[in-house]
Amino acid sequence: MPYELYYWDGLQGRGEFVRLALEYAGARYVDVARTEAGMKTMLKILGGKTGANIPFAPPFLKDGDLIIPHVANILFYLGPKLGLAPTDEAMRMIANGLQLTITDMVAEIHDTHHPIATSLYYEDQKPEAKARAGDFITNRIPKFFAYFERVLTANAGKHVIGDALSYVDLSLFQLYEGLRYAFPRATSHFAKDYEALTALHASIKRRKPIADYLKSNRRLPFNESGIFRHYPELDQDP
Amino acid sequence: MPYELYYWDGLQGRGEFVRLALEYAGARYVDVARTEAGMKTMLKILGGKTGANIPFAPPFLKDGDLIIPHVANILFYLGPKLGLAPTDEAMRMIANGLQLTITDMVAEIHDTHHPIATSLYYEDQKPEAKARAGDFITNRIPKFFAYFERVLTANAGKHVIGDALSYVDLSLFQLYEGLRYAFPRATSHFAKDYEALTALHASIKRRKPIADYLKSNRRLPFNESGIFRHYPELDQDP
Repeated sequence: MPYELYYWDGLQGRGEFVRLALEYAGARYVDVARTEAGMKTMLKILGGKTGANIPFAPPFLKDGDLIIPHVANILFYLGPKLGLAPTDEAMRMIANGLQLTITDMVAEIHDTHHPIATSLYYEDQKPEAKARAGDFITNRIPKFFAYFERVLTANAGKHVIGDALSYVDLSLFQLYEGLRYAFPRATSHFAKDYEALTALHASIKRRKPIADYLKSNRRLPFNESGIFRHYPELDQDP
Repeated sequence: MPYELYYWDGLQGRGEFVRLALEYAGARYVDVARTEAGMKTMLKILGGKTGANIPFAPPFLKDGDLIIPHVANILFYLGPKLGLAPTDEAMRMIANGLQLTITDMVAEIHDTHHPIATSLYYEDQKPEAKARAGDFITNRIPKFFAYFERVLTANAGKHVIGDALSYVDLSLFQLYEGLRYAFPRATSHFAKDYEALTALHASIKRRKPIADYLKSNRRLPFNESGIFRHYPELDQDP
């Protein structure tokens, strides 16, 4: 039975971190909300009233009867099944810690365009978004990226954890790719300042399952409904 | 060997979610940054340059050589060891999903007083904090709390997952307690609107290990350095 991924249609969003792992591994999955009547199915699960197995929000993964919400949780679950996680239990906890740091950064990226309220449009919080994006570029990108670069380098530079590609590497690829899209000016120094991350990003982009996926119509382009939004007025030199 | 918890001294903060689990279970642990020279040890680990086992930020837990960062990750690891998690693997994933929803809410609570930049003081972002707190009270508290109430009720109301107390219940206690402290007006309706959560909160507060802990000097009072800050100007009726 194929995995069922549930996430909003029309954007990459948080669902993309899961898609990249499924695609890389060549796993069978259905992107439910992109199928006919799929949105209805998704909303029905979100509105569930029985059982503790109710997700708060997409993305969530359905594997048989089990429903697993939250990107890091889904990847923790899928990792070993897809051959994309360390086999050692202690290493899996470390991988999960790295993934949760990515989760935190993703939330901060979202808030660069929505610093006041998710319930408001970006257009209703532009000055605050400019202030938050400025701080994100000046303080937060260097803090997170210097950290990932340091971990990657400490691990000999080819993978962020262990001696093989893991779902964390794939998520770092997406983080790098998304930030380059959203903030081309602020990230123009990435190749110079984050050599290991830049090499990891390039090497993942070249791998056949990812290269094929990026060319497919399953990979939606980045757009201004997603996490990574390119608003030129929020971008600035680093 | 006792567990070593690493977290900033002087505030409850994110470390408190871990402390509550350790305290409830009567586990042996050292709150390292509150010991002499403990801060130095913590900063040394954070500045580590070898091995992938480097945490991004406190809290992290050290168990022998293993260093585990992120609250949800620490609790996922400790849960079974402390008898505070479901034994079934699938249920553990669901517990982790619930805990990650708590993580998300905690990040939003932090941002009610720091919507623009963690690098700035609250005093430098007061109008934006007022706007964000207003949205948090109007839209986000009801969304999160109605969700947790629904899950709790679906699970017969006594525990949020499984048939015994888990670390997720303890974290919900802290969330409830912290919000009552930070926003007394906005949360004055909790007992009326969230009956199951209110009952859970009260029952955990009465349990001996928690009651003892709350009276001890290990439980720092809430203060305006933590996640849950009481700034009367940010509070409002729901």
